[in-house]
Amino acid sequence: MFEGNSAKIRINEVATRDGLQNESFFVETDDKVALVDKLSGLGYAKIEVTSFTSPTAIPALKDAEAVMHRIRREPGVVYTALIPNVRGGERALECRVDEFNLVMSASETHNLANLRMTRPQSLRQLGDVVAQARSANVPVNISLSCVFGCPMEGEVPQDTVLELVGKFADLGATGVTLCDTTGMAYPTQVYSICDNVAKAFPGINITGHFHNTRGMGLVNTVAAVQAGITQFDMSLGGIGGCPYAPGASGNVSTEDVVHMLQCMGYNTGVSVPGLIEAAHLLAELVGHELPAQVSRAGERLTRHSPPAGFNEIRERALARDITTK
Amino acid sequence: MFEGNSAKIRINEVATRDGLQNESFFVETDDKVALVDKLSGLGYAKIEVTSFTSPTAIPALKDAEAVMHRIRREPGVVYTALIPNVRGGERALECRVDEFNLVMSASETHNLANLRMTRPQSLRQLGDVVAQARSANVPVNISLSCVFGCPMEGEVPQDTVLELVGKFADLGATGVTLCDTTGMAYPTQVYSICDNVAKAFPGINITGHFHNTRGMGLVNTVAAVQAGITQFDMSLGGIGGCPYAPGASGNVSTEDVVHMLQCMGYNTGVSVPGLIEAAHLLAELVGHELPAQVSRAGERLTRHSPPAGFNEIRERALARDITTK
Repeated sequence: MFEGNSAKIRINEVATRDGLQNESFFVETDDKVALVDKLSGLGYAKIEVTSFTSPTAIPALKDAEAVMHRIRREPGVVYTALIPNVRGGERALECRVDEFNLVMSASETHNLANLRMTRPQSLRQLGDVVAQARSANVPVNISLSCVFGCPMEGEVPQDTVLELVGKFADLGATGVTLCDTTGMAYPTQVYSICDNVAKAFPGINITGHFHNTRGMGLVNTVAAVQAGITQFDMSLGGIGGCPYAPGASGNVSTEDVVHMLQCMGYNTGVSVPGLIEAAHLLAELVGHELPAQVSRAGERLTRHSPPAGFNEIRERALARDITTK
Repeated sequence: MFEGNSAKIRINEVATRDGLQNESFFVETDDKVALVDKLSGLGYAKIEVTSFTSPTAIPALKDAEAVMHRIRREPGVVYTALIPNVRGGERALECRVDEFNLVMSASETHNLANLRMTRPQSLRQLGDVVAQARSANVPVNISLSCVFGCPMEGEVPQDTVLELVGKFADLGATGVTLCDTTGMAYPTQVYSICDNVAKAFPGINITGHFHNTRGMGLVNTVAAVQAGITQFDMSLGGIGGCPYAPGASGNVSTEDVVHMLQCMGYNTGVSVPGLIEAAHLLAELVGHELPAQVSRAGERLTRHSPPAGFNEIRERALARDITTK
């Protein structure tokens, strides 16, 4: 049960986009490029490098072009970016982005709050961007927010999710990410939704995207793996979050998930010591401690020295046996 | 898959012993009694109230007798305490403790470091205390540390665990707690060890005890449940830890685990809003923020207000459709 048996799990890093856009200050372009270049060597399937949103809307990522142009392209790694509209798509195509990641929400209220559009308006805009990408032969993934619940509406019906994934498939998207935007997902629900979406759309690449807001990020990942999902978004150090869920911790952290999957015998291809090293670099760049646990505690077999005076403790204990004989 | 179907899971609270003994200052006896009395009304199966160790060894729990005598005894709740030796057992019997919880480690190095005895010496001492408890008709649980790994030795062979549980059964213990003392456990290992111990000792009550050091506390709980374990230790707010694993976060938190199990359809009998309220009281008593997530984020369906100006955002979005028609 739960045994990985070397099955391949593909890891997508989102810290450079989803993470950095939630930080309060601007990380210098040189530092972003150095971070992406470091991540490129660690074995990821995909790196979400940046976002081609308006620089005034998200100043933290105003250097999208510069970053995309200057990063090293590791063969085999997909360099993706968030594309909000056709204008963003034009900028991304100029930068030779490998894949477009589009976004809308399964919840009407969250879609309006986050994107200032109704869901039908978002779908029309997504259609335009998918057409633009397809004519440039660039594959498109659509990230669907609030699949497992909306912080403003509550439960989101599973039928809504299935209907929207169907519309994305009709538009020509090659992949869909099922996002637990504010950490409302729980294992039985994750298993059910992932299983139903995968069965209904066998031609779509499904990615899981979990948050650790209520501590369930890792267990939800395992539930999704049990339902056959083999590709996951995660964020180095666990940075990033959602402004609509105050007090919440953010994305599930790459080092914690990869460490767990490795312990369980899955093949992620990603190096845990490399992640820990990169997480320390990231903590320096953002200037605060990160919520991830493995970067602090180390891998599970990390050895600690016995307490001071241990040899004397042992000698005294053994001497007691001799005296009582 | 993973569905609880109203199956009963018994929850043991350890914050008042395992948690408070790791805090740097003394929580007043009145406050401890008020906390235990509050917990008594929340639906726990068991509360580990205190420890009958020497007051000089653990000054934080020097008021063990006073606390045991003054707490309200809720019918159906087992009030247990940690008993290190026969002298502690005498004190506990005078206080009418419902159950003894004894402790030793599966790792020789950790046993010496923590208890200053070799494992054979610990076994002899446990034998004396079990005999004492049985002659007073008090059931005995033995908590076995480092079942899933030792922070000083590394891997602990599963045969060692099975052999020790067998010795505990021979002594007459009614229950054994499999402790992941420093958060080294991972789901496939948890499933394997719990399954093997449960099959080898069907007459022993098995309890799972997990730490969240590497983020796997909740997923390990689910793995243990899948292996048939129905009783778990946890600590309100996630307080407590192990001094031999620096930087580590501690016990898995009661509110996070109970919230997850409730979402999954298990019947814990414990009230999550009650736990969140008690966790806020506990945070005041210990004077710092607690690592638990659900006490900060609230239950999964906690509603948040849409952002300021939401009505205008919606009106503008809807007006766009009318203009373009």
